Amino acid sequence: MARILVTGAGGFVGRNTLVPLAASGVEVHAVARAASLPGAKQCHAVDLLDANARRALLEAVRPTHLLHLAWTVAPGGFWTTRDNLDWVAASLGLYRAFVAVGGQRFIGAGSCAEYGWAPEQVVAPLDESRAACQPATLYGTAKHALHQTLAGAAALDGVELGWGRVFFLYGPGEKPGRLVSDAITKLLRGEVMETTAGTQLRDFMHVADVGAAFAALTAAHVNGPVNIASGQAQPLAAILAEIGRQTGAGHLLRLGARPMQPNEPAQLVPATARLRHEVGFTPRHSLESGIAESVRWWQGQLP
Amino acid sequence: MARILVTGAGGFVGRNTLVPLAASGVEVHAVARAASLPGAKQCHAVDLLDANARRALLEAVRPTHLLHLAWTVAPGGFWTTRDNLDWVAASLGLYRAFVAVGGQRFIGAGSCAEYGWAPEQVVAPLDESRAACQPATLYGTAKHALHQTLAGAAALDGVELGWGRVFFLYGPGEKPGRLVSDAITKLLRGEVMETTAGTQLRDFMHVADVGAAFAALTAAHVNGPVNIASGQAQPLAAILAEIGRQTGAGHLLRLGARPMQPNEPAQLVPATARLRHEVGFTPRHSLESGIAESVRWWQGQLP
Repeated sequence: MARILVTGAGGFVGRNTLVPLAASGVEVHAVARAASLPGAKQCHAVDLLDANARRALLEAVRPTHLLHLAWTVAPGGFWTTRDNLDWVAASLGLYRAFVAVGGQRFIGAGSCAEYGWAPEQVVAPLDESRAACQPATLYGTAKHALHQTLAGAAALDGVELGWGRVFFLYGPGEKPGRLVSDAITKLLRGEVMETTAGTQLRDFMHVADVGAAFAALTAAHVNGPVNIASGQAQPLAAILAEIGRQTGAGHLLRLGARPMQPNEPAQLVPATARLRHEVGFTPRHSLESGIAESVRWWQGQLP
Repeated sequence: MARILVTGAGGFVGRNTLVPLAASGVEVHAVARAASLPGAKQCHAVDLLDANARRALLEAVRPTHLLHLAWTVAPGGFWTTRDNLDWVAASLGLYRAFVAVGGQRFIGAGSCAEYGWAPEQVVAPLDESRAACQPATLYGTAKHALHQTLAGAAALDGVELGWGRVFFLYGPGEKPGRLVSDAITKLLRGEVMETTAGTQLRDFMHVADVGAAFAALTAAHVNGPVNIASGQAQPLAAILAEIGRQTGAGHLLRLGARPMQPNEPAQLVPATARLRHEVGFTPRHSLESGIAESVRWWQGQLP
């Protein structure tokens, strides 16, 4: 029987992977602070930055599969925190400890920030090729460097390596300070929401679909990078309009009240052929159903 | 006064950096197993793969400059050993420990293996641009990934980062099993030396010049990658012929007795404008003087 260790299992993506993984018949071990998580047979509260604790965990669980979602959650912001270096190092150590106990398939979490975001680089859908990778941030650089190094080692080790490049996501449980979580909570509270003009094309995927996509990528035998995205890019204005419609508070949206960031790309549109056809994954949510579920969730949270 | 910590100081390149560094007026601390090394004020026998030992060393020495030459010397061969992953991780940890104690300039050792070696990629001299980087080996991939990640962090930290990409080297003290060391020792012993046809263009730099170039790169304020090479690429046959001439045993050379490796690039010719004009370094040795000195050294070693 396959046995999977999921790191970052208590995070936004992580806790959406466990039930789909368990449903696929694997024994799920979660690295998380929680005592239990739905879908997980067992939770392990382990500091993955501690080399000895990491190795002891791998030797105790001896997983056949590893889904590595943990990364820095530094308050200063993941784009620039130098904790990114520690997580590259810890991830390399985790991989080695996994291989040392006979691990077969390692799935890592990459990012759309691995791609070049300069306007001339994102005129066409971003496919998973190396040529498209030109990260502009420390986070994107660190993720990409990690993937390149792991891919080189995995090819020699005969270990399968899948690498999910996450684009944008939203859904129940999203932290404050993100576009969708802020828009829903503000509109539900009757507050004004100021945004850019919202012409930017972005692919937002419901977090349940992101989790299920990682579970599908884990079960597949697809190697290399795979964009994790809905395939339904839309202008941010359309996403905001849907939130306005479903909360009945669209009049509180102030599109254009904020300027575009200087380096804000006009479009970040992923190619999703690999996810659809090689992994064989189709998202369950439309934007409409995903926003509806999210609005209902926040309605249950707000006082 | 500047204080430099040199890792891998007992290695082939490392021990050729210490005297030039000391001559430039910096206080030299060497990470090495030896009790003392010429040019070093103090040697520190520290396992750089041990995070606590690494941090303690940096806190004790508190260097302003760090020249990081240490890397795996795995017997299985550095091209493919998975120890490359451990050294990426250790190097990232070393960088963080250096910044934590107020370090100002970090110099790393890269490699010509960071560049693409496919025939269509090496028709022109290899300049230091990112576009030329397409490593085909785990070693080259690991070095390149480390450089990218360090460069991203250094820009945020306000730390200077120089990155010397070493091409081919030779000279007194070179290990057996390398082209120049094998050719000299075999010809001096009267043994036949079988090689390929030797049409490949390569840039071989005397190790004393490599060491002095790293010392110059350390003293300069040049950031980013700099090829460390002589600027005098020659066919391997010409290098072998020079060894034959100076040993008086050129008749023992069997050029063409061995087949070319399938992926052996016809040329690996570095651009050296950055080293010459930005770092301001000029090699001291010609091929003739460098081979002469090497032959004399091995004559003193052989029974």
